Amino acid sequence: MTQWVYAFSEGKADGRAHMANLLGGKGANLAEMCALNLPVPPGFTITTDVCRHYYAHEKQFPTDLTEQVDRNIKALEALMGCRFGDAYNPLLVSVRSGAASSMPGMLDTVLNLGLNDQTVQGLARVSQNRVFALDSYRRFIQMFGNVVLDMGHDDFEDILQWHKDNKGAIYDTDLDENDWQGVIRDYKAKVHEITKEPFPQDSQDQLWRAIRAVFNSWENQRARVYRQIHNISPHLGTAVNIQVMVFGNRGQDCATGVAFTRNPSTGTKAIFGEYLINAQGEDVVAGIRTPLSLSKATSEEPETSMEATMPTVYNQLLSVSHTLEQHFKDMQDIEFTVQNQKLWMLQTRNGKRTAAASLKIAVDMVAEGLITKEEAVLRVTPESLDQLLHPTLDPKAKKTFLAKGLPASPGAACGSIVFTADEAEARTRKGDAVILVRAETSPEDIHGMHAARGILTSKGGMTSHAAVVARGMGKPCVSGASSVRIDAKKKTMTVAGQTFGEGDFITLDGATGEVFAGKVPTVDPNISGDFQAFMTWADGFRTLRVLTNAETPVDAQTARDFGAEGIGLCRTEHMFFAEDRLRLVREMILADNAQERVRPLQALQAMQRDDFVTILKTMAGYPVMIRLLDPPLHEFMHLHDHELADLAKHVGKSVDAVRSRLDKLKESNPMLGHRGCRLGISYPDIYEMQVRAIFQAQHIATQAIGTAAQPQIMLPLIANRAEMTLLTTMIHGVAAECFQALGQDLPYVVGTMIELPRACLVADELAESADFFSFGSNDLTQTTYGLSRDDAGSFLDAYYSQGLLSHDPFVTLDQQGVGALITMAIERGRATKPTLKVGICGEHGGDPASIHFCHQQGMDYVSCSPYRVPIARLAAAQVALKTPKALRKVN
Amino acid sequence: MTQWVYAFSEGKADGRAHMANLLGGKGANLAEMCALNLPVPPGFTITTDVCRHYYAHEKQFPTDLTEQVDRNIKALEALMGCRFGDAYNPLLVSVRSGAASSMPGMLDTVLNLGLNDQTVQGLARVSQNRVFALDSYRRFIQMFGNVVLDMGHDDFEDILQWHKDNKGAIYDTDLDENDWQGVIRDYKAKVHEITKEPFPQDSQDQLWRAIRAVFNSWENQRARVYRQIHNISPHLGTAVNIQVMVFGNRGQDCATGVAFTRNPSTGTKAIFGEYLINAQGEDVVAGIRTPLSLSKATSEEPETSMEATMPTVYNQLLSVSHTLEQHFKDMQDIEFTVQNQKLWMLQTRNGKRTAAASLKIAVDMVAEGLITKEEAVLRVTPESLDQLLHPTLDPKAKKTFLAKGLPASPGAACGSIVFTADEAEARTRKGDAVILVRAETSPEDIHGMHAARGILTSKGGMTSHAAVVARGMGKPCVSGASSVRIDAKKKTMTVAGQTFGEGDFITLDGATGEVFAGKVPTVDPNISGDFQAFMTWADGFRTLRVLTNAETPVDAQTARDFGAEGIGLCRTEHMFFAEDRLRLVREMILADNAQERVRPLQALQAMQRDDFVTILKTMAGYPVMIRLLDPPLHEFMHLHDHELADLAKHVGKSVDAVRSRLDKLKESNPMLGHRGCRLGISYPDIYEMQVRAIFQAQHIATQAIGTAAQPQIMLPLIANRAEMTLLTTMIHGVAAECFQALGQDLPYVVGTMIELPRACLVADELAESADFFSFGSNDLTQTTYGLSRDDAGSFLDAYYSQGLLSHDPFVTLDQQGVGALITMAIERGRATKPTLKVGICGEHGGDPASIHFCHQQGMDYVSCSPYRVPIARLAAAQVALKTPKALRKVN
Repeated sequence: MTQWVYAFSEGKADGRAHMANLLGGKGANLAEMCALNLPVPPGFTITTDVCRHYYAHEKQFPTDLTEQVDRNIKALEALMGCRFGDAYNPLLVSVRSGAASSMPGMLDTVLNLGLNDQTVQGLARVSQNRVFALDSYRRFIQMFGNVVLDMGHDDFEDILQWHKDNKGAIYDTDLDENDWQGVIRDYKAKVHEITKEPFPQDSQDQLWRAIRAVFNSWENQRARVYRQIHNISPHLGTAVNIQVMVFGNRGQDCATGVAFTRNPSTGTKAIFGEYLINAQGEDVVAGIRTPLSLSKATSEEPETSMEATMPTVYNQLLSVSHTLEQHFKDMQDIEFTVQNQKLWMLQTRNGKRTAAASLKIAVDMVAEGLITKEEAVLRVTPESLDQLLHPTLDPKAKKTFLAKGLPASPGAACGSIVFTADEAEARTRKGDAVILVRAETSPEDIHGMHAARGILTSKGGMTSHAAVVARGMGKPCVSGASSVRIDAKKKTMTVAGQTFGEGDFITLDGATGEVFAGKVPTVDPNISGDFQAFMTWADGFRTLRVLTNAETPVDAQTARDFGAEGIGLCRTEHMFFAEDRLRLVREMILADNAQERVRPLQALQAMQRDDFVTILKTMAGYPVMIRLLDPPLHEFMHLHDHELADLAKHVGKSVDAVRSRLDKLKESNPMLGHRGCRLGISYPDIYEMQVRAIFQAQHIATQAIGTAAQPQIMLPLIANRAEMTLLTTMIHGVAAECFQALGQDLPYVVGTMIELPRACLVADELAESADFFSFGSNDLTQTTYGLSRDDAGSFLDAYYSQGLLSHDPFVTLDQQGVGALITMAIERGRATKPTLKVGICGEHGGDPASIHFCHQQGMDYVSCSPYRVPIARLAAAQVALKTPKALRKVN
Repeated sequence: MTQWVYAFSEGKADGRAHMANLLGGKGANLAEMCALNLPVPPGFTITTDVCRHYYAHEKQFPTDLTEQVDRNIKALEALMGCRFGDAYNPLLVSVRSGAASSMPGMLDTVLNLGLNDQTVQGLARVSQNRVFALDSYRRFIQMFGNVVLDMGHDDFEDILQWHKDNKGAIYDTDLDENDWQGVIRDYKAKVHEITKEPFPQDSQDQLWRAIRAVFNSWENQRARVYRQIHNISPHLGTAVNIQVMVFGNRGQDCATGVAFTRNPSTGTKAIFGEYLINAQGEDVVAGIRTPLSLSKATSEEPETSMEATMPTVYNQLLSVSHTLEQHFKDMQDIEFTVQNQKLWMLQTRNGKRTAAASLKIAVDMVAEGLITKEEAVLRVTPESLDQLLHPTLDPKAKKTFLAKGLPASPGAACGSIVFTADEAEARTRKGDAVILVRAETSPEDIHGMHAARGILTSKGGMTSHAAVVARGMGKPCVSGASSVRIDAKKKTMTVAGQTFGEGDFITLDGATGEVFAGKVPTVDPNISGDFQAFMTWADGFRTLRVLTNAETPVDAQTARDFGAEGIGLCRTEHMFFAEDRLRLVREMILADNAQERVRPLQALQAMQRDDFVTILKTMAGYPVMIRLLDPPLHEFMHLHDHELADLAKHVGKSVDAVRSRLDKLKESNPMLGHRGCRLGISYPDIYEMQVRAIFQAQHIATQAIGTAAQPQIMLPLIANRAEMTLLTTMIHGVAAECFQALGQDLPYVVGTMIELPRACLVADELAESADFFSFGSNDLTQTTYGLSRDDAGSFLDAYYSQGLLSHDPFVTLDQQGVGALITMAIERGRATKPTLKVGICGEHGGDPASIHFCHQQGMDYVSCSPYRVPIARLAAAQVALKTPKALRKVN
């Protein structure tokens, strides 16, 4: 016989905390508290098996469930000396849902079940408190009406308010016996009116309808949407918890409250919570009366605190709180009721907390000997570290919401609007704080993005140019705010019916994607000493190296400060966009032949060399993986008409000739066009220039820092062996020539980006001449999925809303598709060259779930933008701790 | 001991025809002819093993080679009764290279080797013909100088011409003994001047230098380039053939000639060739004297024909010709020399021929009992059929070359230039023949492409829009002619320094990619009855079904006429571009919500239904695979400013609103954007409309044709299971609803395009709800390779010229990359659903090499443009005949 029902009462319980899948989180922890001898109202849990059975059998319960529930009700009757439905001494119960993980949107709670027109009299007699009994009854009708009969909140609140107004009462507690009788009468009439049936009087009927309502709520619209968003299986199901009622509303020595065992905002070790005297649980939430603080220390009126009003119970609560923390080894979020000075525990669970609190609690608990460093490292959500590294909006500030875009780069920023990168730079130079507002950004806007406090775009997704660059800079960015209409010519932005011009202030919250009107105050990040200690523990556990994607000395230094162990992706073309270089780059592009390219290439070579020297010095002792020119040349040729004339004059060609060259550079699908190593094949002199600059810089940096600089040359967009062979041969040739000129051989390696499906398929051949593979997972996702990350924003919403995609594949690696190709490429590459180094340098390199995958595939490193380095370090540590060594594919 | 040298002489030979890899094609066939007792000058072949040894050992010969060559020379001396280098009765030899397959660009022939200042006297004595001897000597010096000493052609021709002018001679034969002595003296002086050495007098030295020169020529620049282009392994190597000299220049009863055993242009069964009396082989090629026809029938002056001048030898030649055809069972290309009325065979090989000849010869030889139908089917190159289906340029016409682009769609066309599709249509209506000239074409140009005789574009590759559509229409197209500058505004085209305007005539050769000025006469195709018979044989052998890509009734009918067994790809969007529909499509696109889309969708539904009815009727009894809307919506929105205003008025929106919507539709990489099934997810009503139109049409067509129409609904750009499930569920839902309304259930199946790498990786999941897979190999190549077919033209040239790519991957399937994904997808798909039907509908479906691959992977069908259907049928037959059944993966 299947056990459908698990009982618990003080000191003993059928279940335990680890049985959350069967008993739900609430039920499992109630059982655990009972087993700990903590004061828990006795009761029982109907398991999630019943829920699954219910849905598998057209909403029929298992045949033997009734008998098991009856038996447990009888046991409660025996324990409490009262009877369910008994008019003289009625047993009353609460019915609560409880899934394995808490799920907003589901039916929550029905209290006081068992009351009817008769039993309410018995309750009045037994409690010798008629007002309490009537109040409990009307609460029951109200809750049962809301959650079981599907009636509206206002159906009841309007009646209650009418009675209070009629009486001139402010609080519910101001109503007397007669008032409550009137309320109950009117409530019942309303139920009859809406449901066309009288309010159910039979306790068994009440109980089973409540149980059925809980199970039905598992599949209601809100619950389904929530599960879809949070990737929760619909097969988990919910449990139902039935407990003997304890009453916080039975008099002035009664109360109800909620508490965190430590401060969930700061992590400070002291109980933190609220309570209400003479109230039931929902009153705390309802906000009719203002709840009071538990402790004197956190109270504005210490004499109202529970510590002052109920010192004994308060101390008992502290003791329970301590027991729970010692037992669960984590900060607890608890609910309790005090009935006639006796404390009853209604719920405990691990408490939600801010990143700062999470970190402090983890570090403190290690100091207290409660948990190990390993456990501490596993406690903090890597993503949450982001909160610690950026300013945030002052939570107390008033805000005027304008629009919601994508949370493209975290942090809060406030400034006056500018519409061009040049204006951003100009105003910043004058000392203004500005927000750069663009339909989308391009590489030419980089200087403006650097200057601005934050970036807002109306187009583009989480991995659009704006988003990627902003994250790299650690700068707040809201992208793809499609309700914002930008008129770049008129320099206006229209949103939410308002038009903003240059100079008007807005505020961005890059962590939520929200845009607000005017200036909203922000709070600076506060990285405590705990942060450093904690990260050092994490570093001790991880096996993946964490590198960074950086090309400016500032970014490189930021990344070093955040713990990066080298550069995994230095995009040399970013160095081409500075004003003094852009002209040279354009001259090079407009050259009709290699001869004409000589002059600009020589000038660029000196500049690139100097860039590389700085970066190699910053990363002294660490590898610096330098990717040769990647983007299509037209990215350097966004020109206004007057610039075009200037340029034509500068290069000594006709405007028509320049325009014709620009036309030829245009591409239908630049992502799949003349870029990456294809440039190096068409214009070998450009790649040769870059390689020469690298070796010259290596020579200079090595002499300057006294230790060998470690450049690693990386070829982008390789698709076949012939490209790889040709270009590595070229690099080795240039190396030989440079080393001869320098009179010194320098160490270097050559590798390839793996960013095309074909490269994965022929990885065995590529590994013949590659020393390392760096997965360019952004482009690999674009090609594998046939999905342009710049364009996907416009249609992926339909995918999310219909549940066709659970994650943005540009944020979290698509393991089934892209991941399968990565796995294949690593296997094939290492089959050819077992010493092959493998890493990832796409956006996924900073995403914890993707890092998890990278670790399991046996990669050597991940590389991410500077501000995600700490996140990656922690994620790498966690996966190393979680993954049995046997499961990891190692080199 | 390795046998490095293979001897042959009349009646016996060490080698045979099948040993071409070892002896080269020429040597193997000389041996075979000897074995057949045909008159071949005795000699021997130095094997390709020696060539490989030579390059593997720093150009050293095997040590025992000298001894083997010496022994064979001695054998020739004994046979001929003369001695190598003997001043009185010298042995003279020819030295010829001979690789396994003939390779232009390599050293070809040195004749008369063994002559020097002494032996020339002996030859004069023995032949009693001093002029002949001297002529032979000067020829030897000249050929040796050219091919062994690397001297220029003019170094000698200038001297010869001087002597002829001096004498007032027209022909070489006008020179006398003294003249020749002067020529020889001057030749030797020139050799000394250029090489700083006297002309070698030692016969052994001459021989070994000639042998070495042949081997060296294997690695000369031209040979290497040729091998690269034709995918010939450098390790094959060449052989060297050394034969006793026979002389066609020894008097008026001597001659030299070449012949085909049947007419290589028409296939007519009659010897076809030319000869020269008193000449050596190179004279025929050199064009100094005009060669004469062999037979009276083909001669303009029958009395000069060999049939008339040397009737006995001519009959002997006919007899040899017959023997060779009977033996080799194919038309032969032969070289011969007549020395004093005796015929000597110098070479035989299978003759090159036109497609028409190829077909006729194959069919005739079956009738003659020479070959089987299987052999006949294997004889004709599938690609060559293209020549039979299109007009070609009159080979005799004079042409003024302007430019060379890509041979995008075969056939020749001549017409006056137009620069817009509308103009093309207007002028064609007036009866003009026009050529549409565009930088590139878009789907909106289709009506103009239909109207034009041919299409010329300056951008785009072999698989650009223009190329694909033109091939589909069977219309000549030259694409990517990058030297053509088009100014669409001024309506001019500038090329080769000339500017052409509207109305000027040009001529295209789509088979070669050439563009000519003015009108060049063309020759119409002539599909004989042989074609039908031959194709019927082919159909008997193939197992792959051949379908077509078509959406217009005309194309569908053309394809049926060419033998298509259904439609493998009907691109419904092509039906959207007609003028009356485009307005509705735009109205649909500009709708703000589904409600606004109802009206245009209903109108479109009726039109689509009618389209489908016609096509289903045309393909009565065959499957018609209909792809739902695929291209991004902006493809329908190329609007001029005035059209925009009209449109805005029509749809009742402001111009700004329309413009803003157009802006939102723009994409960075449309190929990877909002298209394919993504449209069906965002706008389910569009797909529902199309599906409804299909079922309604099926109902109407089935009733009209009395047999079930077979629509197969195809979903484009599927990337994951969720898309597939959602959309198949939608289709089944619409089907149920339609069938209820129609009062009849109709048969249909639903399948998916496989055109993304991810689709291949999750093919097992897609097969759960797909009845068939159709590989969209164009897009699959684009994504797997990360290569935009519209943009690749600009940089792939550098790949071909550097040998990084041997084939255009959009023409011939990349088996290693894209093919590996296809193999994976078929395996995974059929693992889920063994009955899954699989085919290909990209451009590769009409490419013989790709069809080969498709057959081996166990596909059920290929689908290609109508004009490639015969090619596909023949290719499918050939691969079925060539592939052992065991090697084919079958369902």
